[in-house]
Amino acid sequence: MARVIVDVMLKPEILDPQGQAIAGALPRLGFSGVRDVRQGKRFEVEIEGEADEAALSEVRKMAETLLANTVIEDFTVRVER
Amino acid sequence: MARVIVDVMLKPEILDPQGQAIAGALPRLGFSGVRDVRQGKRFEVEIEGEADEAALSEVRKMAETLLANTVIEDFTVRVER
Repeated sequence: MARVIVDVMLKPEILDPQGQAIAGALPRLGFSGVRDVRQGKRFEVEIEGEADEAALSEVRKMAETLLANTVIEDFTVRVER
Repeated sequence: MARVIVDVMLKPEILDPQGQAIAGALPRLGFSGVRDVRQGKRFEVEIEGEADEAALSEVRKMAETLLANTVIEDFTVRVER
């Protein structure tokens, strides 16, 4: 069994209102020195068997099909040791 | 400038309906071999200056205060090279 992590973030050119709301709130909570905040999704996908190249390419297909909206989002797939 | 990643996931004992909905949908889309899926949030926090220990502890405080609901969520903080 292996755990594969899929991180999904809005493409850089896409406005991130949630991230901006957080970046705007932090100074009001007394935090300084934050230039930008972007919010995305993190998926932990537990798969049977080893996380070999074939399994990773399956997870990439899952990300393209279901986990990310590839028109406005980018994703990365990696194995978590 | 440094980019600090905050990953927020539901605590293991907390039911994750979104993750379960995804895990349920994957076989219908032709994917097999997935045991479980959990969904969480990923924050990319861009801070001024270096990501030294003081900066990381500030980001931890941000996570405790705003980014995570520590009653039902765990979070990790790390620097992305």
